[in-house]
Amino acid sequence: MTLSMYQAAVPVLSRRLAILSSLLAKGADHAAAAGIDPSDLLATRLAPDMFPLTRQVQIASDGAKGGVARLAGVEVPSFPDEETTIPELQARLARTIEFVDGVPADRFEGSEDRRITLKAGPRELEFAGRDFLFGFVLPNVFFHVTTAYAILRHRGVPIGKMDYLGAS
Amino acid sequence: MTLSMYQAAVPVLSRRLAILSSLLAKGADHAAAAGIDPSDLLATRLAPDMFPLTRQVQIASDGAKGGVARLAGVEVPSFPDEETTIPELQARLARTIEFVDGVPADRFEGSEDRRITLKAGPRELEFAGRDFLFGFVLPNVFFHVTTAYAILRHRGVPIGKMDYLGAS
Repeated sequence: MTLSMYQAAVPVLSRRLAILSSLLAKGADHAAAAGIDPSDLLATRLAPDMFPLTRQVQIASDGAKGGVARLAGVEVPSFPDEETTIPELQARLARTIEFVDGVPADRFEGSEDRRITLKAGPRELEFAGRDFLFGFVLPNVFFHVTTAYAILRHRGVPIGKMDYLGAS
Repeated sequence: MTLSMYQAAVPVLSRRLAILSSLLAKGADHAAAAGIDPSDLLATRLAPDMFPLTRQVQIASDGAKGGVARLAGVEVPSFPDEETTIPELQARLARTIEFVDGVPADRFEGSEDRRITLKAGPRELEFAGRDFLFGFVLPNVFFHVTTAYAILRHRGVPIGKMDYLGAS
């Protein structure tokens, strides 16, 4: 055994949120340069019944803080969904990163077998911690970061795969 | 330490590819029901300079087999990018899953510290195995599966988040 649950969760999620914040910064730059109202960018969705960019960012935040808190057995911090600008969304991501990074590594000990239940719409899902992380938390956060990226690309923001990967 | 590199790679990637195959099946059903040419679905992209659906599936396959092979220190199987139909793409995913699932778990021992180099466009990237898995392979495969999902949603295929998560 060569990995801890902490290693597979905290730095991975924290990095994704930092990258999402950078993608939003490029969105803001592009909106300014192209004369697009940033609110219009934030309201963009890829299908009429998909969530717009603002909500993608909020759910990425929720997925990361909820996932980490449940694995670590600490209370999930509640952030009201009130952001209406790119800087406000970036501030939320910064607060989320601060929370995620601040959970002590030793709280994750034994979390691979911890029973975790959560509501998903009308259903109650139950997982062992390991399956929760790899089958729910990571897929969910990657989903919303990628969808945010796709919305920005769809609107012409000049970003590429390396911006998503965050490769240095 | 409570996780192995094998656990964090093989079942996670294998499941994503199986889910992607299910999403494609729903795309095929929708195309048949709505009188859309499946080729038209496969050629859809979210931005003029993004890859179309076919290529998203091929790259998800490449990311999974390349990632697993490099971590395990075995040869990367080469699959020609010749698929032109949904069933052909599903066959490729099935072949990829068969390869990924067939790599013995003990080949991953020590892979967290293995030095891995790969070409990404004009650049050479170098990683320790752990960073390769969490900072490159998983982000990359999740990216292409999510983008495939987004393309299908953008074209009106009736799928939802639970289809992406694969929650039972």
